[in-house]
Amino acid sequence: MYVILFYDIADRSMKEKDNSRSIRKAVEKYLPRVQYSVFEGEIRPSDLKKLKAKLKKECEHDLDSIVIYEFDKPSYTRREVIGIDKNEPLFS
Amino acid sequence: MYVILFYDIADRSMKEKDNSRSIRKAVEKYLPRVQYSVFEGEIRPSDLKKLKAKLKKECEHDLDSIVIYEFDKPSYTRREVIGIDKNEPLFS
Repeated sequence: MYVILFYDIADRSMKEKDNSRSIRKAVEKYLPRVQYSVFEGEIRPSDLKKLKAKLKKECEHDLDSIVIYEFDKPSYTRREVIGIDKNEPLFS
Repeated sequence: MYVILFYDIADRSMKEKDNSRSIRKAVEKYLPRVQYSVFEGEIRPSDLKKLKAKLKKECEHDLDSIVIYEFDKPSYTRREVIGIDKNEPLFS
C-alpha cells in the first residue's frame, strides 16, 4: 500500500518533553521524507500498524496532529511544491 | 480534479510581514480545511491555477513550504488522524 503522511508537531516550548525527534525518527524508519513535514512511500500494512501504534504513543494528543492518507497504490498525477522544496519527487 | 494541500508556514517572528493569514484565506477560498495545516477537496483546474499563482506571490520561498497533491478523483482508501482532529472526514 502507499501512504502520504503529514505532521504538525507543536513547538517544544509548549511541552514537558520534546517529542519532535522521536516522532520524526519513527516515521523515517518506514517512509522517505519528501518535505520537512511530509513523508510518503510504499509501506507494508503490518509496518503501518506498527508505525501508527508508535505515533499514538509518542504524540501529544492535545497539541500535535499527524494525518495519514492511505492508498492502494500511488495515484496522484502531480505533486507541486511552492516555497522550500526539500526533495525531488519519488516518481513522476 | 481533487487536491490535497498541506502547508508549513514559518513563524511570524522570522518574517518582516506575517503572511500566515493571507495564505490561509487564499486556500480557504477554494478548499475545505480538514486539519490545521491540511486542506482537501474538489477544485476546478482554472481555480487551482489561480490559487497557485496567489500562493506563489504570498509565500516566503526560503521559509514557507506548501505541498499540493493533485488527483483525478478522490482516491484514498482511508484518512487517519493521530492527535488533534480538527474535522470529520469529507467522505468515507
